[in-house]
Amino acid sequence: EEDAALDFMSDALAARGWQVDDWTVPMSELAGEPGFCDSGGDLVAIRSVTGTLDAAGSGGKSLILQGHLDVVPEGPAEMWTAPPYDPVIKDGWMYGRGAGDMKSGDTAALFAVDAIRRAGFAPEGRLHYQSVVEEESTGMGALATLARRYRADCVFIPEPTGHTLVRAQVGVVWFKLRVQGKPTHVAYAGTGANAIMGTFQLLTALEELCETYNARAADHPAYKGEEHPVNFNAGKITGGDWASSVPAWCEVDCRMGLLPGWSVEDVKAEIAETVARAAEAHPFLRSNPPDIVWNGFQADGFVLENADAPETALSAAHKSVFGTDGPEDRAFTALTDT
Amino acid sequence: EEDAALDFMSDALAARGWQVDDWTVPMSELAGEPGFCDSGGDLVAIRSVTGTLDAAGSGGKSLILQGHLDVVPEGPAEMWTAPPYDPVIKDGWMYGRGAGDMKSGDTAALFAVDAIRRAGFAPEGRLHYQSVVEEESTGMGALATLARRYRADCVFIPEPTGHTLVRAQVGVVWFKLRVQGKPTHVAYAGTGANAIMGTFQLLTALEELCETYNARAADHPAYKGEEHPVNFNAGKITGGDWASSVPAWCEVDCRMGLLPGWSVEDVKAEIAETVARAAEAHPFLRSNPPDIVWNGFQADGFVLENADAPETALSAAHKSVFGTDGPEDRAFTALTDT
Repeated sequence: EEDAALDFMSDALAARGWQVDDWTVPMSELAGEPGFCDSGGDLVAIRSVTGTLDAAGSGGKSLILQGHLDVVPEGPAEMWTAPPYDPVIKDGWMYGRGAGDMKSGDTAALFAVDAIRRAGFAPEGRLHYQSVVEEESTGMGALATLARRYRADCVFIPEPTGHTLVRAQVGVVWFKLRVQGKPTHVAYAGTGANAIMGTFQLLTALEELCETYNARAADHPAYKGEEHPVNFNAGKITGGDWASSVPAWCEVDCRMGLLPGWSVEDVKAEIAETVARAAEAHPFLRSNPPDIVWNGFQADGFVLENADAPETALSAAHKSVFGTDGPEDRAFTALTDT
Repeated sequence: EEDAALDFMSDALAARGWQVDDWTVPMSELAGEPGFCDSGGDLVAIRSVTGTLDAAGSGGKSLILQGHLDVVPEGPAEMWTAPPYDPVIKDGWMYGRGAGDMKSGDTAALFAVDAIRRAGFAPEGRLHYQSVVEEESTGMGALATLARRYRADCVFIPEPTGHTLVRAQVGVVWFKLRVQGKPTHVAYAGTGANAIMGTFQLLTALEELCETYNARAADHPAYKGEEHPVNFNAGKITGGDWASSVPAWCEVDCRMGLLPGWSVEDVKAEIAETVARAAEAHPFLRSNPPDIVWNGFQADGFVLENADAPETALSAAHKSVFGTDGPEDRAFTALTDT
């Protein structure tokens, strides 16, 4: 769905004299890469666009500017004051799905290079500008640039974070709970098992697991000051066919956060164990345990380290623009491409 | 969707020499009839087929044989051993969606009249055979036959009830709960409100209301012997867009039973009050109360009375077939067209 945006970025880079690499890689070729996430079959290939400006000199540090073009679903239409994909400008701000996250950062980074070049400067080091997709659900767009062997001394991702520097970010595990019920006519509801109500019992247990994670987070070097850094979300649910049939199935798409240093495999095991234990306490699910499908993010957390040189440069830039020290550090409770 | 079945019944009746009335009535024309249920806009018209055999004599009692052609959704395909709409016969029984409820009764009633006529008899009273739709969700097919002014001394509905006579049946109220949430990125889940989890709190309160109904049922003349005659069901749910967005919306189709003598309006008021009270206890729903849409069944319960003559005839028929007294009485925890 991001093809029009990728076309736009490809043209915009070419028009500015960047060498453009516009490529598509089948998901199957990414499957062996570290950090690969399965999308559950929805994704068959990843298209990315990278523009390159060769180093004007020798000895300069290389830099990647990376931003994503994908957006999350727009939610209920009635909660928008204007159609989400018809951006409007009001009081100097643009409103529309993706305007903030992260077309603002994409555009700022591209225009910043324009400004530098128009002022007559040419970066001493090699510069890549990358537009990726899938940042919001698997991170496979960023992975595709690594699989293409793009590397640099520093990567700057201008996600909108309110003038803060993300020094740590959580990992994320996505999963789909598939819960069975025993379908009967509601006239005999007692002989059936309602998959929707059973699902809620499992979600309640996962909320409790999330609270134990937050208790554990109190000792974490990067997150100990944060209130409730680990969040669980039941984000999408669908189940049953008909008001008067005891529902035979229910599915929920869930997200659990994890802190840097925690292992994705450990968290998956704890989620599986929590679901199994909650199912054990349910008369029907005990002998009909739910399935867990791990699709989408299975991503580690991250702590920024060994980045003195770019941090010094960023601080100097911040001071020259805002006149104050900064940017402030942030321990981020979401994740971005890393 | 029942057009093929209605065509089939229309042809079957015509081939047997019944006078066939095959008509379609717009829902808007039924709206003034007592017992009208709104389908929420899904239904625009109701088609029904009635075959009539005029009375062979005078002085005979008239009879309506009525059955429905609609079926409930088939549920998960993997729970069927054969495709639900490809009936199979195994050990003398037909399996497939609608074979039992109620093509079996439809067919038995039609063949019974065939047998009587083939044996050389002609009913003294007027006989109607009616195929209706929408028995499973609104009852508007049966209502359409009443609006068409079909009346008889007795109506027999051969629903499969295991050789019992349904002496009482519950009423049913359907409704759709529409619950709002406050969408945020899951990174800041604490500042949002999860519509899916909020929905669960409302459903729990409705389960509790159902238990108070069952306590009330302990004194009911027709149901006092029944264990848990009133059932609540959350039958179909859908909500949210995406694993990592706090869901802004969730909708559930629900069904609540009520006993004969209880008022549909009272039950609706108690459901609304229960939902409002549960919402009041929720930090977000308190100021963003859920909607309740009353679509589908809004049907009273029923007790069979003043039916000595047909009951005597039915008992005699039962004895001649089974050699035992019967049929046994039943207080039904579902409803049929009445």
